Amino acid sequence: MLLGGIEAGGTKFVCAVGDDSGRIINKISLPTVDPEETIKAVREFFNTYSIEALGVGSFGPIDLDVDSETYGTILNTPKTKWKHYDLLGNLKRAFQVPVYLDTDVNAAALGEYKYGVASDVKSCLYITVGTGIGAGFVQDGKTYIGKNHPEMGHIFVQQREDDTFAGSCPYHGACLEGLASGTAIEKRYGQKGVSLSDKEEVWELEAYYLAQAIVNYTMILSPEMIILGGGVMKQENLYPLIREKVLELVNGYVEIGSRSEFIVAPGLADEQGVKGALALTFGE
Amino acid sequence: MLLGGIEAGGTKFVCAVGDDSGRIINKISLPTVDPEETIKAVREFFNTYSIEALGVGSFGPIDLDVDSETYGTILNTPKTKWKHYDLLGNLKRAFQVPVYLDTDVNAAALGEYKYGVASDVKSCLYITVGTGIGAGFVQDGKTYIGKNHPEMGHIFVQQREDDTFAGSCPYHGACLEGLASGTAIEKRYGQKGVSLSDKEEVWELEAYYLAQAIVNYTMILSPEMIILGGGVMKQENLYPLIREKVLELVNGYVEIGSRSEFIVAPGLADEQGVKGALALTFGE
Repeated sequence: MLLGGIEAGGTKFVCAVGDDSGRIINKISLPTVDPEETIKAVREFFNTYSIEALGVGSFGPIDLDVDSETYGTILNTPKTKWKHYDLLGNLKRAFQVPVYLDTDVNAAALGEYKYGVASDVKSCLYITVGTGIGAGFVQDGKTYIGKNHPEMGHIFVQQREDDTFAGSCPYHGACLEGLASGTAIEKRYGQKGVSLSDKEEVWELEAYYLAQAIVNYTMILSPEMIILGGGVMKQENLYPLIREKVLELVNGYVEIGSRSEFIVAPGLADEQGVKGALALTFGE
Repeated sequence: MLLGGIEAGGTKFVCAVGDDSGRIINKISLPTVDPEETIKAVREFFNTYSIEALGVGSFGPIDLDVDSETYGTILNTPKTKWKHYDLLGNLKRAFQVPVYLDTDVNAAALGEYKYGVASDVKSCLYITVGTGIGAGFVQDGKTYIGKNHPEMGHIFVQQREDDTFAGSCPYHGACLEGLASGTAIEKRYGQKGVSLSDKEEVWELEAYYLAQAIVNYTMILSPEMIILGGGVMKQENLYPLIREKVLELVNGYVEIGSRSEFIVAPGLADEQGVKGALALTFGE
């Protein structure tokens, strides 16, 4: 049985044909242009295969409230051509197979849970720290969606006293994403994170914010494992800095497992999203 | 069929005999003394009835990890006599019926979900703001427990610039509980909240913190309704202050329903805990 998976991102759509063991048979990456053109290219790729179901991990915000009239539609996005685009409806019409839609970060969490670093735990939170910050959560094989999907990057944390940056989030200023995303780093220092890799103080501050976020997620969701991915996390010294700071902040109040097992790097390089999208088709 | 429910608190155990419609037949409140004496009194109350199952919403922290060797045991608590007490095991031995254990706040959330203000929504978060701060979450009739139970009062939020209070939490200083619990109010102002009820600035600051917490819970869990209970919330002007601040902070980024329906007062006066404990016995 062949299955389709799409990691639908703001800059590219990664499409894969695979099977229910998580094996990928063929994969391509298509640029995200306007919806019609993008979906046409997606269709051409999958048309050589007879897939029986399609899983999609999409950028957002997207309406995932099954009771909503606009279920499956892209909501307020700066990508104006995609605003109000009925992604689920159009994919269903294009492929005439069951389509399973979720957020990109939930798909990534599911990919790591099924085939990656979280394959032997019962729950994991996948946090991506890149241009923006987002997180997806899986428990007992099911991705978490509430009334609508979480937007975990937009929580508030304590700004460090000596950090006078106003924050880069157009909605919330100094929320987590506004303080600690790649965009925030670039705006605060006037250069990209990659060119700051030897500046200790940059990563100390970054760890200060990400550690608080991890504590907040842990106090609310109590995941068994936390996976930190995304472009900013290529700065590998962040992992030990964050682990240390989380331990310090939690201060023994709750048990969070051993330091190295609780907060980890992804196990699937850049394939957790598309493999998770494939896994969305398995149902419960 | 008769069922038993216990709201096991740090100062009192509220015990009720009821049925599966949520009706309470008899109820008593017993002081929380040492474990043996307390459980003996609980036993005497229930012994006049032949209950077929017992639900317990307990103070914590308590081990709710079913894979743990100490599942059902009270963990680190300042109530030293209860520390490491096997609450679940002792109740099972005392009553010889199935015992369903959860946190006090999860039981309260379930009570409101089944019989109270949240009876027509799919998910609700019950936040109690009293001596401490805690929250329980129910979605589709099931209480949320992660690897271990959440400790939602201990998240970090942004401290207001003009608030120089160090925070009252013995573990985290200025975490949410350390900034906004009844204990924090009393320590910050040198008097209890009830005697400060006409001091506008006290409740403005309180709303500032609780609103941030609600935004964080919402960005992470996306509940359909938020219920604010507990002693501090007897200060009723907090509700409009918090609603306004939450709208301001969210800034249209996610949909959170209408102001008056999203953040509400409890519907069951002081019975959500014990009614929720009864409802824990219904299973799935």
